[in-house]
Amino acid sequence: MSDTTPLQVPAVRPVNAAEITEWHDEADVVVAGYGIAGVSAAIEAARRGADVLVLERTGGWGGAAALAGGFIYLGGGTPLQQALGFEDTPENMATFMLAALGPGADEAKIRDYCDGSVEHYNWLVDNGVPFKEAFWGEPGWEPPHDEGLMYSGGENAAPFNAIATPAPRGHVPQMLHKRTGEKGGGFMLMQPLVETAEKLGVRAEYDIRVQRLVVDDDGRVVGLITKKYGDEFAVRARNGVVLAMGSFAYNNKMIESNAPRLIGRPGAAIEEHDGRAILIAQALGADVAHMDATEVAFFGDPQLMARGILVNGRGQRYVPEDTYPGRIGQMTLFHQENQAYLLIDEAAYEEAMATESSTPFFRTQPKWVCETIEELESEMGLPEKSLQTTVEVYNHHAAKGEDPLFGTKPEWTKPIGTPIAGFDLRNCTAGFTLGGLRTDLDSAVLDIAGEPIPGLFAAGRCTSGVCAGGYASGTSLGDGSFYGRRAGISAATKHAATKHAATGQPATETN
Amino acid sequence: MSDTTPLQVPAVRPVNAAEITEWHDEADVVVAGYGIAGVSAAIEAARRGADVLVLERTGGWGGAAALAGGFIYLGGGTPLQQALGFEDTPENMATFMLAALGPGADEAKIRDYCDGSVEHYNWLVDNGVPFKEAFWGEPGWEPPHDEGLMYSGGENAAPFNAIATPAPRGHVPQMLHKRTGEKGGGFMLMQPLVETAEKLGVRAEYDIRVQRLVVDDDGRVVGLITKKYGDEFAVRARNGVVLAMGSFAYNNKMIESNAPRLIGRPGAAIEEHDGRAILIAQALGADVAHMDATEVAFFGDPQLMARGILVNGRGQRYVPEDTYPGRIGQMTLFHQENQAYLLIDEAAYEEAMATESSTPFFRTQPKWVCETIEELESEMGLPEKSLQTTVEVYNHHAAKGEDPLFGTKPEWTKPIGTPIAGFDLRNCTAGFTLGGLRTDLDSAVLDIAGEPIPGLFAAGRCTSGVCAGGYASGTSLGDGSFYGRRAGISAATKHAATKHAATGQPATETN
Repeated sequence: MSDTTPLQVPAVRPVNAAEITEWHDEADVVVAGYGIAGVSAAIEAARRGADVLVLERTGGWGGAAALAGGFIYLGGGTPLQQALGFEDTPENMATFMLAALGPGADEAKIRDYCDGSVEHYNWLVDNGVPFKEAFWGEPGWEPPHDEGLMYSGGENAAPFNAIATPAPRGHVPQMLHKRTGEKGGGFMLMQPLVETAEKLGVRAEYDIRVQRLVVDDDGRVVGLITKKYGDEFAVRARNGVVLAMGSFAYNNKMIESNAPRLIGRPGAAIEEHDGRAILIAQALGADVAHMDATEVAFFGDPQLMARGILVNGRGQRYVPEDTYPGRIGQMTLFHQENQAYLLIDEAAYEEAMATESSTPFFRTQPKWVCETIEELESEMGLPEKSLQTTVEVYNHHAAKGEDPLFGTKPEWTKPIGTPIAGFDLRNCTAGFTLGGLRTDLDSAVLDIAGEPIPGLFAAGRCTSGVCAGGYASGTSLGDGSFYGRRAGISAATKHAATKHAATGQPATETN
Repeated sequence: MSDTTPLQVPAVRPVNAAEITEWHDEADVVVAGYGIAGVSAAIEAARRGADVLVLERTGGWGGAAALAGGFIYLGGGTPLQQALGFEDTPENMATFMLAALGPGADEAKIRDYCDGSVEHYNWLVDNGVPFKEAFWGEPGWEPPHDEGLMYSGGENAAPFNAIATPAPRGHVPQMLHKRTGEKGGGFMLMQPLVETAEKLGVRAEYDIRVQRLVVDDDGRVVGLITKKYGDEFAVRARNGVVLAMGSFAYNNKMIESNAPRLIGRPGAAIEEHDGRAILIAQALGADVAHMDATEVAFFGDPQLMARGILVNGRGQRYVPEDTYPGRIGQMTLFHQENQAYLLIDEAAYEEAMATESSTPFFRTQPKWVCETIEELESEMGLPEKSLQTTVEVYNHHAAKGEDPLFGTKPEWTKPIGTPIAGFDLRNCTAGFTLGGLRTDLDSAVLDIAGEPIPGLFAAGRCTSGVCAGGYASGTSLGDGSFYGRRAGISAATKHAATKHAATGQPATETN
């Protein structure tokens, strides 16, 4: 009698170091995963004099980051923001993030992240990441060309534009190859950072699967058990291990137990995101946070959505249509049972289609085209008067350029006319997970008692970062790189500091 | 540099048995917590010949159960259902539970629970729990007298009444003292079970705080460290430990990290629900599930709600008003930003007030009373036409006894007239947590690899039970008692079975 289907990962328990007969490789700092968090950790550890070894599961560096659009959420007055005429402060940035990424967002982490954001921007630039001084101000998922800055979290939309001063914080590395469609912003983020790591002497091994942690009798993490083509190896970490192995979006069991609305709809993650980093640390007593938190993509074109109205399965509006499309996705999947329809009149549709979109593949055909709202309501199978009254209320206020219900901006708030088209956007969502290991501001993995697990650090989407109940594009590459750096610094210096504490010698920093 | 505020529980790590110099007490089975799960475990373990010791934190037995209304969620054709003319099957019961308690509900656990429900009813009756053959069919939170059966999860409301055949499953122990207000159904559930346990020789110690688990070199749980009035004691469990210590509703740190919508609004839990059972097991590598799941109470009188309409902060309807009030609470807190207003016309209000309610204290005064909907809309500060069109759509269909938007039953679906009253039900929610340790059908606590932790069992609200994304009244006392029994059986017999496996001797069962 048992309800347990086997986990996708059969053995995750730590191994005692006394059982290791041979270390097949070793380094001061061993980084598991060569995505954004891993490369950031590797650079900072190497700069502090550590011998760094990166173990990557696939055949090359990049992770989910290299496949991403490349937004990094930065602000507080970055040189790029300033050059493009946008005012921002760390306090203003934190006010927005606390409002948009909660409830339950880690305030200490958000304030720390905002306070360090300008320095982090400069670090990226210093390490070769290019940002073009150009702003893209249209509704969209990402800039259509190589513009470097864009609103990426609904900062300039209701309700957040009344809570904090709007400032765009989606920083995108310049996509030199964008026109050929060859490489996106995420690649342009990763490439210079990996080159930097290589110049610093960081070693990398590929096709390596991390299996378990190795722990000494004092509970310190001193290495990893890995697998390459079926053979197991023991890799010693003299100073510390950094876990940077991504989310659990592709671990069905964990999704079912923690974020069941994502069952069957993983998105913007890679299949390697199997949650293993979380599991091997939990097996050691690590704490986790916000395991239900989820980014949600929505397969609708913001240029169309901003010009129409979105209604749920009952014909009711439910979100400001001109906000961050990821917020629309979250409102749809979590609060509207994944039921959404877009209504747009012919004139607005034609205007949108004449406008450049970064996601033309989201410009699907309307399912219904009708001469009246009443006819559309009937065609859609909605109850009599439900859609008609929704449009009546919207139009009543839109005639004055107002939207007292949801606060869309006047520039997008116009009465809906006829003929009218209806788009079926039901079940048009996918997403990845935001929950994971609980870490402190030094990226130490905390155990269930709130104490750092010696020798174990983590960053990126295997950790709980700055997001909880909400998301903004760029926060994953953002906190992944920011706390990846911290993990590298801590792993390179913390253990040494501990070891030499008795002698009174501080840890050596070579940077 | 650290974001960690201290946990409310400072030290939760397991202690190695080799460090124990003296066992201050011992038993075959040690049960932590004397609520519904604890007493059920104690009875079953004692019946199997185990020497059982229950450790309770407060000065007496009862836990949250004794303070509860006393619903136990039972069905599949219990003698009480049959006597009162309701047909039900385990399959029908499972169909409802899977629809109402998801997404992500543990299907194996639900099917197991439904298959065993009639036997479990009989077990309760055999152990002295009285159920009166009377049905209460009015909308409400619980029966106003000593009726034994009631709908308690929206079984007879939309959308569930179209998914499974409606059957009431809220079984309430007869409240002999109800008229004096002295003791509720939860007390009448606990009292006979504790008397049964005492007759079976179960020992109980009070004012004992469980601190940590004691583990031997093989990773088997062999005891507990406890504290009484500041002194620490070691208690040995020869066969197994059963954790039955309740939810984490009163652990602010855990609430913030896992169920942040409940910040500042714990309800129907007791302050002892500090999550400690979850933490001490997680420190040993135990897995958890659905840590975000939440029961939500709503402080509105169902007799009023069923006769009016509920609207959100935008004047839109959002839930069938005649459903389980806990579902209304969940829809309000999770999906409507805790914003709710009740509209009811004078005639319906007077009818409701002339009807008996089990929760007369939820019959607050209306905040607004107006001659027209337009006036009420204005008084409430809602955008022009928003409320008027909501009532227009509702009335258009209600004139035919229909509610195509939310499916309220014809008996409650009547056009709203004037004068009209508006009740302010914003922020009228509270709740407790449903997530916790992952257990199998034998109530073994599973580790992160999906394997049982030897010697450790758990039940009740420190475990993830039959609920995930939804709730029905009685499922907590229901799965607490059902899997509490399993925990007792397993703790009494499993260890012995393991020990004697080599000899081919099965574990002795004395029941």
